[in-house]
Amino acid sequence: MKSYINPPRIIWDKLSQRPYFNADKLEKKVKKILNKIKIEGEDAVHEFNTAFDNATYKELKVTTKEIVRAENELSDNLKQAIRIAYKNIWKFHETQQQVDFSMETMPGVSCMRRSVPIDSVGLYIPGGTAPLFSTLLMLAIPAKIAGCRSIVVCTPADKDGNIHPAILFVAGLLKLEYVFKIGGAQAIGAMAYGTESVPKCYKIFGPGNQFVTAAKLLVNKVGVAIDMPAGPSEVLVVADSYSNPNYIAADLLSQAEHGIDSQVVLVALDKALLNKVKKSVKQQLELLPRKEIAQHALRKSSAIYFEAKEDAWDFINHYAAEHLIVALDNAEQYIGEIKNAGSVFLGHYTPESAGDYASGTNHTLPTGGFARSYSGVSLDSFVKKVTYQQITQEGLQLIGNTIEEMAAAEGLQAHKNAVSIRLRK
Amino acid sequence: MKSYINPPRIIWDKLSQRPYFNADKLEKKVKKILNKIKIEGEDAVHEFNTAFDNATYKELKVTTKEIVRAENELSDNLKQAIRIAYKNIWKFHETQQQVDFSMETMPGVSCMRRSVPIDSVGLYIPGGTAPLFSTLLMLAIPAKIAGCRSIVVCTPADKDGNIHPAILFVAGLLKLEYVFKIGGAQAIGAMAYGTESVPKCYKIFGPGNQFVTAAKLLVNKVGVAIDMPAGPSEVLVVADSYSNPNYIAADLLSQAEHGIDSQVVLVALDKALLNKVKKSVKQQLELLPRKEIAQHALRKSSAIYFEAKEDAWDFINHYAAEHLIVALDNAEQYIGEIKNAGSVFLGHYTPESAGDYASGTNHTLPTGGFARSYSGVSLDSFVKKVTYQQITQEGLQLIGNTIEEMAAAEGLQAHKNAVSIRLRK
Repeated sequence: MKSYINPPRIIWDKLSQRPYFNADKLEKKVKKILNKIKIEGEDAVHEFNTAFDNATYKELKVTTKEIVRAENELSDNLKQAIRIAYKNIWKFHETQQQVDFSMETMPGVSCMRRSVPIDSVGLYIPGGTAPLFSTLLMLAIPAKIAGCRSIVVCTPADKDGNIHPAILFVAGLLKLEYVFKIGGAQAIGAMAYGTESVPKCYKIFGPGNQFVTAAKLLVNKVGVAIDMPAGPSEVLVVADSYSNPNYIAADLLSQAEHGIDSQVVLVALDKALLNKVKKSVKQQLELLPRKEIAQHALRKSSAIYFEAKEDAWDFINHYAAEHLIVALDNAEQYIGEIKNAGSVFLGHYTPESAGDYASGTNHTLPTGGFARSYSGVSLDSFVKKVTYQQITQEGLQLIGNTIEEMAAAEGLQAHKNAVSIRLRK
Repeated sequence: MKSYINPPRIIWDKLSQRPYFNADKLEKKVKKILNKIKIEGEDAVHEFNTAFDNATYKELKVTTKEIVRAENELSDNLKQAIRIAYKNIWKFHETQQQVDFSMETMPGVSCMRRSVPIDSVGLYIPGGTAPLFSTLLMLAIPAKIAGCRSIVVCTPADKDGNIHPAILFVAGLLKLEYVFKIGGAQAIGAMAYGTESVPKCYKIFGPGNQFVTAAKLLVNKVGVAIDMPAGPSEVLVVADSYSNPNYIAADLLSQAEHGIDSQVVLVALDKALLNKVKKSVKQQLELLPRKEIAQHALRKSSAIYFEAKEDAWDFINHYAAEHLIVALDNAEQYIGEIKNAGSVFLGHYTPESAGDYASGTNHTLPTGGFARSYSGVSLDSFVKKVTYQQITQEGLQLIGNTIEEMAAAEGLQAHKNAVSIRLRK
């Protein structure tokens, strides 16, 4: 971690730079995969599963038998933990439901707004070294609450067709019917175009490697919605002399271990904290199984001291972190300062990993500065808000002239006619 | 309009095809414009204004004097109409405000969700033949209600620097400070990167020609959010023997006059209606100033009869229209049938133009089938929903093991440590 003391605003852009993933490079390769699936369907999926994942299995769809077996393979402790997380996430996302709303803007002019579930959604869950069953909870729970008719899950299996039992356990818990053993760009293609067994999806969610990300961006161009532009994970911790350097170091490392592209930032309101945290990071790092990954990430990360609190908050909002930990006393009093962040962790006893797994908030969040304009995944991500209007004959008498005047002024005579012809009667 | 009688499902994809805009073709040209603005700032904007719009003016920012003058140039009728539309749109969008929500998912584990305005937004308003002052109402009103600090408007001026007075009047009504005489791709560049006088925007809204659309897609790739992928406008009318063929024809034409790429579809539950509507379209078309545009659009449009109501609704949802007019008796009883649509117009006295201008709903809607997964612009489009969590020391005792179990199972030891180090104390 490189230290900065009161860095001037002119270098804030540089300090906020994230490792940038250019999907263009992979575009050609991934386009070929997608096109082949579009034309040849499931045969192409099998072909890629064999080529990329050495798949020997033929059945793509996970069976009930596999789900039952998975339940037996997991420890009771882990199952209990997953059930608790499930409940918390369900509770918090359920509160995001919006009732249909209807009002008269003028007598006889009714306007309504309803949440309508997206009919068919696809969830990509990475497997491999880190089987992200927590991500399946985070995506499938709001999809279930929203009432999406078809929820498709794609996740890579090993060469014999085995999926990590925790992923299958979550699928069983949520009664997910469509779980397929497909990984990588071919999974995105299968969900975007549909195949003989994979239902076509209108929106695709979930993290993934660069091929997955490139594939999501490509299908987005041809009409399939995606959750958000995915990038490497990141955390910013703001702390002062009352903060615990060991806690901060642990939080920074929990983000750094995600990947070599992860970025962690400390904003210190106390100069002495910089070295205290760095020292603790060094100590704790030694014991980590993913030490090398974390080391890589730390090299691109920074520890910044600001003398003026105002500058610190301005920088925090400039950076727009995916995860923002406010490791300060009475942390809740700073809520008003926070303009740009994906999810916020308040106080000394709220590690980021709480939100990653179990507090109840969603962990699919905007990275790379997108927190300036994007929200994280929520129930909203699985519905469309459709508006309706209904005007009575009397209502049209009242509002008709307004429409006619405006349409005429915009030079759109037929827009005007659509009202005039109804008023004439 | 081509007629179809009970078209089989196998051709529904073809019948739902929209004119597809391939931004790739313009990409190179537009990239050059954007890059020049990124590097050279406002000088480049002036250069493009001169090159593309023959601009002779030097001052980009609209002055208070111009706004006052505009008010004097408009008829009282038009000003009154705009004020009524303004009120209705404000009323309906104001109801979309969400109160901050906070709950305990477990004792000592608080989760919160707040709507935080996007700090700086940019609105592109096309000028030229159709000065879309209604679009300025539709975008600036929710931005104002959301509380966005900086609302930037770019719209092309004529060569002497004049903007249509109705656009300026709306800007005055909404007290918009940052209105700039910039059109085309250079406007998107100015808002995305910021210049000496144009504030940098985190999200850019608004329709535009192919250059504008290509520019929006390009800046989206580098971190600026956009409202939605914009495409040609479209309407689908569902009607039966109780519907008025002349009203339907007027509605179809009001969409067809938008542009040669517009698409209009009639879904008839009565066979005789097909020819009745076509006849009326032919008659009404003759009187339209934008007759040629409408004719073009009609050539690519279809009138479809379905004998089975179920097929009709399946097709309507398959098509996923931007605007859906339900020109049926007791139209409200069909709300449950509608899965995919941008905005819905219920009954015989609710022309689409009501929603385009004044009923209160937003007219910036998903086109090209995106209604399957995207919502139209609303108050939500101008805020981020940020989540917060705060865990007490006691709360962490309760939830800590859950997080530790799950982190360990995902192979993320540092995630686990961030909890363990706090429990140890």
